[in-house]
Amino acid sequence: MTNPDLITVNGDRLWQSLKDLAEVGAYEDERTGLRGVNRLALTDADAAGRRLVISWMEQAGLSVRIDRMGNIYGRREGTDPAARPVLTGSHIDSVATAGAFDGCLGVLGGIEVVRTLNERGITTRRPLEVAVFTEEEGVRFGTDMLGSAVAARRLSAAYAHALTDRDGATLGDELARTGFAGPVDERLDAPHAYVECHIEQGPVLARAGVEVGVVTGVQGISWQEITFHGRAAHAGTTPTELRADAGLAAAQLIVRLRAMVDSGSYGELRATVGHLIVHPDLTNIVPARAELTVDLRNPDDAAMARAEEDLAAFLRTLETGQPGLSIATRRMARTAPVPFDEGVQKVIARAADDHGLAHLSLLSGAGHDAQEIAALCPTAMIFVRGEYDGISHNPREYSTPETCAHGVDVLATALLRLADEE
Amino acid sequence: MTNPDLITVNGDRLWQSLKDLAEVGAYEDERTGLRGVNRLALTDADAAGRRLVISWMEQAGLSVRIDRMGNIYGRREGTDPAARPVLTGSHIDSVATAGAFDGCLGVLGGIEVVRTLNERGITTRRPLEVAVFTEEEGVRFGTDMLGSAVAARRLSAAYAHALTDRDGATLGDELARTGFAGPVDERLDAPHAYVECHIEQGPVLARAGVEVGVVTGVQGISWQEITFHGRAAHAGTTPTELRADAGLAAAQLIVRLRAMVDSGSYGELRATVGHLIVHPDLTNIVPARAELTVDLRNPDDAAMARAEEDLAAFLRTLETGQPGLSIATRRMARTAPVPFDEGVQKVIARAADDHGLAHLSLLSGAGHDAQEIAALCPTAMIFVRGEYDGISHNPREYSTPETCAHGVDVLATALLRLADEE
Repeated sequence: MTNPDLITVNGDRLWQSLKDLAEVGAYEDERTGLRGVNRLALTDADAAGRRLVISWMEQAGLSVRIDRMGNIYGRREGTDPAARPVLTGSHIDSVATAGAFDGCLGVLGGIEVVRTLNERGITTRRPLEVAVFTEEEGVRFGTDMLGSAVAARRLSAAYAHALTDRDGATLGDELARTGFAGPVDERLDAPHAYVECHIEQGPVLARAGVEVGVVTGVQGISWQEITFHGRAAHAGTTPTELRADAGLAAAQLIVRLRAMVDSGSYGELRATVGHLIVHPDLTNIVPARAELTVDLRNPDDAAMARAEEDLAAFLRTLETGQPGLSIATRRMARTAPVPFDEGVQKVIARAADDHGLAHLSLLSGAGHDAQEIAALCPTAMIFVRGEYDGISHNPREYSTPETCAHGVDVLATALLRLADEE
Repeated sequence: MTNPDLITVNGDRLWQSLKDLAEVGAYEDERTGLRGVNRLALTDADAAGRRLVISWMEQAGLSVRIDRMGNIYGRREGTDPAARPVLTGSHIDSVATAGAFDGCLGVLGGIEVVRTLNERGITTRRPLEVAVFTEEEGVRFGTDMLGSAVAARRLSAAYAHALTDRDGATLGDELARTGFAGPVDERLDAPHAYVECHIEQGPVLARAGVEVGVVTGVQGISWQEITFHGRAAHAGTTPTELRADAGLAAAQLIVRLRAMVDSGSYGELRATVGHLIVHPDLTNIVPARAELTVDLRNPDDAAMARAEEDLAAFLRTLETGQPGLSIATRRMARTAPVPFDEGVQKVIARAADDHGLAHLSLLSGAGHDAQEIAALCPTAMIFVRGEYDGISHNPREYSTPETCAHGVDVLATALLRLADEE
């Protein structure tokens, strides 16, 4: 028999899965009263979420394996078990102030596709696999897309296992503690193709009034930790000209970064200082030390490099401007822009067309596991529209049940067609 | 018999007391390897320091009383017990990164004066009292000169007892826990005069090459806590123009404060942001909230008021500049400049002259208990030179044994003469 040319999934069942998973690690947002999700990688909440997802995979008949990075793969056999599988998936770890969709839509969407194929009695030539990658956010252990980067061999498991959180716990210890230090080799064999469905986390689709986006690639990311060493001094008596104020230097950098963005001289640069502390952090003492992180994003690698150089040059001017001030920088993460496979983009676009869904092509503002798996096989992503200008990493993150279902309809049809390819 | 016209104290004994007290709450400074002092008010370390000082008072024959604010008074009777006493003293609580001299020199200097009077068999007409005031730094409970402000009736004991530290412990509870919730009425009867000896904590004496300063008054202090409420958002995907970045607004304020200082438009304004935190404090999330403290000092009350107004106006421009940003301010402390008594200044200057010590008159850059007690009686202060440009609130704070002894010689002679006044 031949498979149907396109399939639609059960949107209510998909929505229920999203709601059920969002209860794991749920919290009440102090300011807005909204219900948010806090499921940092390999915490007890993340482990509970993993166990729930694995139970759903097994109910859908998937054979589950876990690798030495805690990456989870659920496999549905094809008629040709020797054929390289078509892979889909994403992550379920979250930032501390998250919504219900980031990552989860791709994982639960993949499982919903399998449920639908089972109901319809559809078999594919190639095996189909649904992946859950470890520590995509990079918030707890400091390197994002970590599980997929190791699966794609960009980073080693030894490097990843030795990473520590702020309390000094290593990722390796946390894998063991939560029971997700699996037996399977973490180096993933090249799939036939990879398709990831994800909420946009940006305003492009919302402003265009379009539900589905075909992602052309991911912008580059640069993370640095910058530490300013000044001199503690009495706030009332130390003349301004004798101060080495680490907090002032940190503030000057933050203001300068915004000026660099506004200048337009660095392409579509985005700059964020999300982490910032001062020491000794007391009202009447000039800060002796300040520490912050700089998160730069840019779709243009040359413009990104220029921004990094000018940032470094500005730090040198800060040092010369305040005698007694010294500045240390540490590279946390650096990824180049990744263009996605045009063939897979075409399969996604055609699936959207066949479902009668308007779509547009756009670049991803956020990092995704797909940019790592792209090193192994032809890869592209499907974005679904987020409401409220696509606000994300925030409890207000939201996409409608209809939009989520439409995005996963496109995913299902694209996977079906890729899985029947020679 | 008549008392000698001037007396000199035992500088070695004074120095040993300073060294012994500095061992209580001592710590090793991580960066410099220097030995510092951490004796925040009403911590176990502060309580241990208080017990040591009380034991020295009792060894010097002082009758010790403790009031309901934990203020400690050691009394040496005069020939006329009905006469109002001459008061001296200071504080022994410290910031978290302190040296051995701030406050302690005034308390231990006062005790050394009593020891010297005892050795010489000198009796004074008026009683002499040595005071140790509670929470002068204001670092733990948020209001500085707290004990002396209550003794002088500017603040109520009820207000002070209800103040909490960052862990939510109240000052009243901490007084009881440490055993310093005394039985004596916290409202101090007006003394005849008050003289406080203190390390300068500034560069004026060091740069003039003079050991002793006669303090003409204390500059005004303004403390505010400012909280910026923005919106958490994804660092990679949220367009810059859609952000309400609380951390950026905080940085803009810090940079603006420095520009206000440098403008010279606010007299001898000094501005410090010593406390600064952001939330959720994660690398790839635009800060939803930032909190900082602003410490302003100014000898000119009109210029201080102007600086506060312009600061408030700038905060309003920040709110209008970033839609979604809201700013809340809370007054922590506000003291007007306090001029000291010219008569007491003359007694101090003459004592320095009679000891053959060069001296100069200067304004205090820091707040001191003397500015509170000045509301009760004629008051002035003696400053002793600090080395290294008078660096303070830092383990490098230092004054030589000779300079400390000379400062306390002046204190002893001034107290002796004031205590013999009608």
